[in-house]
Order: sequence, then C-alpha cells, then structure tokens
Amino acid sequence: MRFATFLDADGRSGLAVTRDGTDFHGWREDDPAYPGSLDDLIQGEADLAEIADAAATAARIDLDAVTLAPPLRRPGKILCVGLNYADHARETGRQPPDYPTLFVRFPSTLVGAGAALVRPRASIQLDYEGELVAVIGRGGRHIPRDRALEHVVAYSIFNDASVRDYQAKASQWTMGKNFDATGGFGPWLVTADMLPPGAAGLRIRTRLAGAVVQEANTDDMIFDLATLIERISEVMTLAPGDLIVTGTPPGVGIARTPPLFMKPGDLCEVEIERIGLLRNLVVAEG
Amino acid sequence: MRFATFLDADGRSGLAVTRDGTDFHGWREDDPAYPGSLDDLIQGEADLAEIADAAATAARIDLDAVTLAPPLRRPGKILCVGLNYADHARETGRQPPDYPTLFVRFPSTLVGAGAALVRPRASIQLDYEGELVAVIGRGGRHIPRDRALEHVVAYSIFNDASVRDYQAKASQWTMGKNFDATGGFGPWLVTADMLPPGAAGLRIRTRLAGAVVQEANTDDMIFDLATLIERISEVMTLAPGDLIVTGTPPGVGIARTPPLFMKPGDLCEVEIERIGLLRNLVVAEG
Repeated sequence: MRFATFLDADGRSGLAVTRDGTDFHGWREDDPAYPGSLDDLIQGEADLAEIADAAATAARIDLDAVTLAPPLRRPGKILCVGLNYADHARETGRQPPDYPTLFVRFPSTLVGAGAALVRPRASIQLDYEGELVAVIGRGGRHIPRDRALEHVVAYSIFNDASVRDYQAKASQWTMGKNFDATGGFGPWLVTADMLPPGAAGLRIRTRLAGAVVQEANTDDMIFDLATLIERISEVMTLAPGDLIVTGTPPGVGIARTPPLFMKPGDLCEVEIERIGLLRNLVVAEG
Repeated sequence: MRFATFLDADGRSGLAVTRDGTDFHGWREDDPAYPGSLDDLIQGEADLAEIADAAATAARIDLDAVTLAPPLRRPGKILCVGLNYADHARETGRQPPDYPTLFVRFPSTLVGAGAALVRPRASIQLDYEGELVAVIGRGGRHIPRDRALEHVVAYSIFNDASVRDYQAKASQWTMGKNFDATGGFGPWLVTADMLPPGAAGLRIRTRLAGAVVQEANTDDMIFDLATLIERISEVMTLAPGDLIVTGTPPGVGIARTPPLFMKPGDLCEVEIERIGLLRNLVVAEG
C-alpha cells in the first residue's frame, strides 16, 4: 500500500491511498469520510489496511492534479544518520564509524515531492543527499535488534539537502541540516509489507540535472535499520510517526573536485527501487 | 508574571499564574474557564497579561499540592547551545567558538521541576548542566539582532543533563543529549517584562547534593540571546513556543578530577536569580 498526503488548489489537505501503485483513491479533509491525516493515523496506530479498504470505494485522486505534501508533516522526531555508508564516510575524510552518528532535523525543514528545495541567501553550498527513510509504527524503548523491524510501519525517500559551509561552522551539524525547506520527503509512504525486511537490497540513486550522482544499494549501510532501532531505543523511547533517515551513499557534491552544488533551476531526483521517485526543483530563497 | 503547568493527583493538567511570585491562581483543564495549555497559549500568541488578569479571580492553586510539569510540554524546536561560556569551552578542552554550536533535544527528554531526572541503565556518566532557557513568543526569519529580544516572551531554567560517554561515542552529541527524562525544565515561565533585556546580568548557580558546582552570570555568555536569535533565524524560521537553551557555565562534572556524576538519590538544583529554582531528584532507570 502507498499513502500520500496532498494539498488541493484551495489549500485543503487530503489523503490518497493505493494498493497497487498507480490508481490512488481517497479524501479531502472536508469529506465526512476523511479518516484523518497520515500523521494522526500513524501516531494513533490506525490499521492502515482498513484505511486502504475504505479508500478503494472513495473518489479517485489524480496525483498529477494535486500538490504532494510531505507524507508526514509533523513527525515527533526526525533522527538522521550520518556516515552510514562506508564509502561516503571515507569521501568526507572520516573513518567508517563503530557507533551511529545521529543528528536531528526539525519538521520545519520538510518539503514534499514536487515542491521546491530552497537554496538559502546565506550560502551557495546546497548539497544533495539521497536517503531511505523508515517510519516507526509502534513505539518502544530497549527494542532488541531481532524484534526491531516489527516497529517499522512504512518507508519513503528523503533528500537530506545540506548547506555545507554552515554544517562546518561548528562541530555540531545542526545549522547546516536545518535551513528551511531543505528536507525533501516523499512522494508517499510504502508500507513495510510491500518491501523486503528493513528495505534491504534496494537500489538507491540520486540524479542532479539529469546526471546520476549517487548510486548504491541499501545493503551497503554500515548500521542496518534493525541495528539503528536497537541503538536509538537504548537511549530514547521511539514513538509512532518518528522518522529514521538512514544516511546517504557516496557521491555527494562537497566531496567532488571541483565541488558540485545544487543551484536554482536544477532538478534533483532520488529514486529507490520499489518505493518511488522523489523529485524537487531547486529555487533561490526569495 | 509567572506561568506554571501542573498535574493534579488525578493526572489532569492545569495552568497556574501569578503576578507577584507567591500566590498562584488558575484552572484545571476540565474547568470551563481553562484558557488552554501554556503550549497552546504561547503557540497561539495569546495575550498573557489578559490570562493573568483572568487568573486573578480563579481558584488558588497550591503549587506544593500539585506536580509541576515542564511549563511547555511540546515545544516545536528545542535548540541547545553548546560551549557558550568561555571557561566551560576551555574546561572541555576546546577553544571558545566564533559561531554558535547548536544541538537538539526532543520534547521526550523533558521533565518538570520536582520530577525525577533518570540515570539510564546504559551509563553512570549522567552530568548536570544548569542553563537559562528563552521561549520564543513571536516567530520570524532573518531577525536582526537589534529586534531579536522582541521575539522572546519568557524565560525559565533548564538542566541539560548529559550522558557523557554516549555524547562522545560519535562526533554528533545527539545520543548523549536525548536520553529519556534527562531535561529538567521549570519550575515556571517568567515573562520577559519581569527581567532585564535578554535576561542578562543574572546569577546562575547549580548545586548537586547541596554543594555548589556551577556559579556564573548570564552576562558571561559568548553569544548573547539576541545574537543567538539572529544567527539561528538566518537558517530557520523561529516559531512561537520554540526554546533556546543558552548553554552551561563552567563546573560540569566530566571536567573535574575525578569526574563528578549525578547518582540516584542526589538532588540537583539550578537557580537563576529572579527566575526561580529548578530541583530534580536523580533516580535510576527502572
């Protein structure tokens, strides 16, 4: 099943669902049958199969005629993993780590598929980072690795666009990772039952202005999703709707000679096999 | 004015307000006159003076007979500043920075005054960090330094308790700063009109098990609050209810010989002149 959050021309949000990947049905928020936002459904641990059954008889939603929003617009936590592909760690001049490197994004950075990634006034160093993102469906603390994937309800695609000079201004990356409208997220959630366990073994590819700039496989992660969940939940209680953004493969722009940054007018695309294609146009901050 | 969020014996939350600091009045959430949670009021940019006027004729609330919650329970962003007192930066072996070092806490770490700070199973290295926290009352982006304090509605006290070995497991401090129930926050919000601009010039002191372990003045910050707001809002839109936790003075436990950590049974107290006293007992994770 795929679940998308959309905005119509009047700014009303809605929920679109498909079982087979092409033919979406659903509701606008002012429809009496609207079951709630995807945030509310997932945070409330709703039965998504029931929602999909109900959607089957709802109105058809033409995704080309609406604007996609981030599937979840207010995740409680957005936990991002740095340096989780060995060749990416090496290209940034670091050794592959023996413990996950985690940083945080705020929901205010999120933009949906088709929306603009904003290059800020402050910098020209806006860099792409294509990533797999997992959505927690059942919360918990001290989740053992062998039960961890039971806590994942869905997957999607993330472009963890990073402002490199601001990322490097201090030891902590918070500023470079939290410029407004730099977190591409979408186009939809794909439920975990549609994918291999942990979304392992999937090809991930980033294109900038048509050229392939990252190409890897989710199998190449240093810390697989189950391990990440075990380590994170040793520290904090995971809650439904939390995101784990699993890290980017090699090929980022800052590691190239000369560096390659995203500039206004560029189309950046992140594609993950069996999940979909996240496309964002880069625009300059107004 | 001081605004506190409390829980009564039945788990109902409520809002308690005083103009003069000793005599609180307010409402439980099931009172028809309850104006909403402090989160809702501040995020909705309510007129706090009007709320205080209304509270004056409401029931008296004995703060000793209720449990204090974090004044805000779901801040949109919790932005914490590292290394913001020169002598603290030096005691950790670093030079005072020329750009703010920011890291993030999740709301899931927050506990109110009187509640327990939890030393996790994973570590004995739970360290205190007494800090001033500012609450954003009016949002904005690209806020100039000379208008920045107009965006601050209130101040409070924070204990940014840190699990040092987890903070050091990777370059990013996220894990060590986000163990459940390690962020003491309270006892209440003090509105900005009651304090010097930027809450500058206030004595801040931390006591552990009765001994003074940190003593400084908020004037000693490297980046004052107005500068922090300017730098942060260059990157991201600040929103009402966001917190800026302004950094800790020297004296932390990890920098001592031998190191001094908080252990179950210890009382940790952070006091800031004209704001109040944040007391938390340390307990072991169950």
